[in-house]
Amino acid sequence: MTRFASFADLRAACLDLPSGDEEAAARVALREGSLTKPPRSLGRLEETVAWLARWQGKSPPRLEAVEILVFAGNHGVTAQGVSAYPAEVTAQMVANFAAGGAAINQLARVAEAELRVIALDLDGPTADFTVEPAMEEAEFLEAVAAGHDALSRQADLVVLGEMGIGNTTSAAAIAAALFGGGGARFAGHGTGVDEAGLKRKQAAIDAGLKRHEAALNDPPRIAAALGGRELAAILGACLAARRARIPVLIDGFVSTAAVAPLKKLRADALDHALSGHMSAEAGHRLLLQELGLKPLLDLGMRLGEGSGAAVAVLVLRAALACHTGMATFAEAHVSDKMRNR
Amino acid sequence: MTRFASFADLRAACLDLPSGDEEAAARVALREGSLTKPPRSLGRLEETVAWLARWQGKSPPRLEAVEILVFAGNHGVTAQGVSAYPAEVTAQMVANFAAGGAAINQLARVAEAELRVIALDLDGPTADFTVEPAMEEAEFLEAVAAGHDALSRQADLVVLGEMGIGNTTSAAAIAAALFGGGGARFAGHGTGVDEAGLKRKQAAIDAGLKRHEAALNDPPRIAAALGGRELAAILGACLAARRARIPVLIDGFVSTAAVAPLKKLRADALDHALSGHMSAEAGHRLLLQELGLKPLLDLGMRLGEGSGAAVAVLVLRAALACHTGMATFAEAHVSDKMRNR
Repeated sequence: MTRFASFADLRAACLDLPSGDEEAAARVALREGSLTKPPRSLGRLEETVAWLARWQGKSPPRLEAVEILVFAGNHGVTAQGVSAYPAEVTAQMVANFAAGGAAINQLARVAEAELRVIALDLDGPTADFTVEPAMEEAEFLEAVAAGHDALSRQADLVVLGEMGIGNTTSAAAIAAALFGGGGARFAGHGTGVDEAGLKRKQAAIDAGLKRHEAALNDPPRIAAALGGRELAAILGACLAARRARIPVLIDGFVSTAAVAPLKKLRADALDHALSGHMSAEAGHRLLLQELGLKPLLDLGMRLGEGSGAAVAVLVLRAALACHTGMATFAEAHVSDKMRNR
Repeated sequence: MTRFASFADLRAACLDLPSGDEEAAARVALREGSLTKPPRSLGRLEETVAWLARWQGKSPPRLEAVEILVFAGNHGVTAQGVSAYPAEVTAQMVANFAAGGAAINQLARVAEAELRVIALDLDGPTADFTVEPAMEEAEFLEAVAAGHDALSRQADLVVLGEMGIGNTTSAAAIAAALFGGGGARFAGHGTGVDEAGLKRKQAAIDAGLKRHEAALNDPPRIAAALGGRELAAILGACLAARRARIPVLIDGFVSTAAVAPLKKLRADALDHALSGHMSAEAGHRLLLQELGLKPLLDLGMRLGEGSGAAVAVLVLRAALACHTGMATFAEAHVSDKMRNR
């Protein structure tokens, strides 16, 4: 079992990170240049294969064991009327995941990925962050460790997703705490709150930012004060993946906000992570810009559960199939001489 | 065998088109609303399932028989030094398709689609359009008919792609003829011409537009004078798909330019077609805007062969899996009551 003894201990772990394997990435690029297509004409497909190789330290990379981890948690801030759905829906959806009836179950099957759902104390929601920290230090570190331990060390790729009624409010609060702008900048309609609900959401975020002003200079404290157990677990899993050099596909707004504190601690801390998609949730575009992440897909999805990143797994499978299966110019007797005039 | 006797005959066929099945699309939307997710939270995934149902006339739609048709042709305009590769590469790549070594072979396998390659008189390139019409009326209509006949009437979805050294020049010329702006507006680097090559390409397009000025008020004549056999065949296949109510995924710049004359003839002629992706080829974004098409993917690909649209097939498979496989709120005992305050 992973143990982080304190915020300081977690910070230290987040600063001590391995680099990518540039040689593996270079071997991928070399082979790409020899394949029967104009140079770089597969665009991001080529880039993603090099990225997989860099973080797996393997050329060619593999996508045999793809794991989707969905963390679920409940949020005291729902007391502020910030969500379109009642908090019971979190547990109901976890049951739906177990029964195979949710979107992510279908997408995991299509993506040939293993889905694992980790429910984090759904009967004990975090505290309402407008009143007190969502989690005390020990509680937060326990959720981080749960995420850290959930990762299989044998995965070739991990997708990080979440479920938690109220968690776009936590995500927007973390984003605003890290990058400024307050509730108005990052709050969106989430699962579908009306205009009055959106106003309550913005007000709750602004109240939380004010309440926890003293914590806002420290990314782990921000994640504890304003976040949620599932967000903390995603942070832990993303950190564990980096330590094990496993590439990560991040899902939408909530997952992106969950890992954002890592980037604030260390500029290259998310280099092993790719943004799977741009969510339709209002704050996601801004947050991705702040993090310098360029999403693979933009399909107007806003479901969470890892769903957008699961679709992006298909793009990676297509990219890898081209990389490993295509003939070289020499093998196919195709002229790779550019015309000289 | 399909026969179009004249430009006028083809025009008449392009104007006599079936509509979509709005009832099937509505049944899809009704089911989507009952599934365990916030309304419309799967974004374009939900839209594409409704679109498949509308054009297949089936709810739920099917993706059992997915067909990728790649048409290949050679272009006399290569004499103007418009391409980075010599014209022999068209036939070499057709051999590569047959041997299974090209990108589209790998992508077809991942997309579980049947790939069929139709080479159109590669030893007889079209005429150099800067000097004379690329194709005479009968030659053009024969290529349209070849495309029309290539389509299996049993397909659930067809992807239209192409291979032809020099064909981004034809595509840019068609786009400029239909939408204005000359060679400077739609010409790009294609497979990788340098700046001098790009200048030659723009000049060739402008010379072609001037040379065939008298034909520019008639979309089929534009396609004959400035196009190529593979572009004409794509137009024919797209028309055949509409008549058979088979949904079409259009690939990149060349494929989009190939079907653009249909839209100019009749505003709703491409409603059964979805743009699979936005190519990195410079003119594609502009052309999609002119046509009012919103691509599913934007991955910086610029290979042709149907490759971008083949990746988009994966998105459709993901969308359909959610639609058919998810539980409803009632089945999963999940509360679909929005919170009332």
